Amino acid sequence: MNEHLQSQLDVSVDCVVFGFHNNRLKVLLIEQENVSKNNNRRYALPGDLVLPDEHIDHAAERVLYELTNLKGIYLEQFHTFGNPNRVRKEDDIEWLNVIRKNPDARVITIAYYALVKMEDYTPSPSSYAEKAEWKDVLDIPELAFDHNKILRKALKKLRKEVSDHTVGFELLPEKFTLGQLQQLYEVILDMQLDKRNFRKAIKKMDTVLALEEKQKGVLHKPAQLFTYIGERKEVD
Amino acid sequence: MNEHLQSQLDVSVDCVVFGFHNNRLKVLLIEQENVSKNNNRRYALPGDLVLPDEHIDHAAERVLYELTNLKGIYLEQFHTFGNPNRVRKEDDIEWLNVIRKNPDARVITIAYYALVKMEDYTPSPSSYAEKAEWKDVLDIPELAFDHNKILRKALKKLRKEVSDHTVGFELLPEKFTLGQLQQLYEVILDMQLDKRNFRKAIKKMDTVLALEEKQKGVLHKPAQLFTYIGERKEVD
Repeated sequence: MNEHLQSQLDVSVDCVVFGFHNNRLKVLLIEQENVSKNNNRRYALPGDLVLPDEHIDHAAERVLYELTNLKGIYLEQFHTFGNPNRVRKEDDIEWLNVIRKNPDARVITIAYYALVKMEDYTPSPSSYAEKAEWKDVLDIPELAFDHNKILRKALKKLRKEVSDHTVGFELLPEKFTLGQLQQLYEVILDMQLDKRNFRKAIKKMDTVLALEEKQKGVLHKPAQLFTYIGERKEVD
Repeated sequence: MNEHLQSQLDVSVDCVVFGFHNNRLKVLLIEQENVSKNNNRRYALPGDLVLPDEHIDHAAERVLYELTNLKGIYLEQFHTFGNPNRVRKEDDIEWLNVIRKNPDARVITIAYYALVKMEDYTPSPSSYAEKAEWKDVLDIPELAFDHNKILRKALKKLRKEVSDHTVGFELLPEKFTLGQLQQLYEVILDMQLDKRNFRKAIKKMDTVLALEEKQKGVLHKPAQLFTYIGERKEVD
């Protein structure tokens, strides 16, 4: 890389992909290629630098694919992290010195997130990722750079969208019971919800329609089925 | 600037400051210093490059202050624009060639927005701004770079937040009538709202409280007063 092409500032993308499966909320993490003498393995969000002439949205798709082999996921930009010291921890520097052409550059990162049905996506690591795996959001290790902070912010965004009823329905069958919906909310919000209040809130919604139809093939008393008629976010 | 310090990539911040006054929604624009032979004056959002060691949020405050002398405005980041060609129109290039040390660099911009009581902020231009003025959002000229697109996106965000009832109340007195609230909504949403449906929707809200109190000193039949008990966004 020619001296005069060296940038003092790089821009990267980081992807927070939430997966839902069997009532667990997980997030897709990679384990970085191990470059440290002290064999210090680091988990991180899938992320890398934006290429010179690449649209940032395309960069997010490319980077996710290169590191985890997942594609076809709708990634939504949610926040850009621009603290000048965000990649300056000792092991951050050690890792950047091995990986990056320009390890001293400041890196501003644009974060994207998605919520997908986990069973539809089985990641496999490539590029600098040694592993790519789903980790329970309630049990996250210390991550590289400021990725714990990025993950917290994404979780906050996800929980807000669920409370606003603008996301989540994609993870349910087309016809669902209010019990299934409450379970989904409880897992994403990580809190117990009062059944009566929850149902009152949902019934207020113009986007959730009660069907003249009940569950079939269940042992317990079949519950009424509902459907979502609001705009569906393309999350997968 | 030393060759080897030249960056092929710059990051800027742009500020979309909405002002509300006398039932009009305006946005703060600057007129760029005129550098073109053909005396082609350009309006733009207040924006400039992030400094090497500056947090992006601080950059937004600084840039807004340097160009318009406005400060103490809570600016919220809402989107980052990363199309590789976003500053490549002919007059963009002409302007950058005069103003920027590194006019050929790609520029990714982080956009911030705010909603303020216009009467509290009287802008005055400085730095490369020749004018700084409030323009009606319904009458926006062609702007520099992709600033019309950034403004549209900010307006969309603002309208969504108003529809979600999470912003706007800051612009009303502490005690307001539903008529005042509906007027505010109609101006920001740029649409007429059905009085009955609007009141039904507002009455559903747990954050708007009816007071045992009526308007005073009005000629018409005094209307009931309401207050907002939800979380107020610090928008000014």
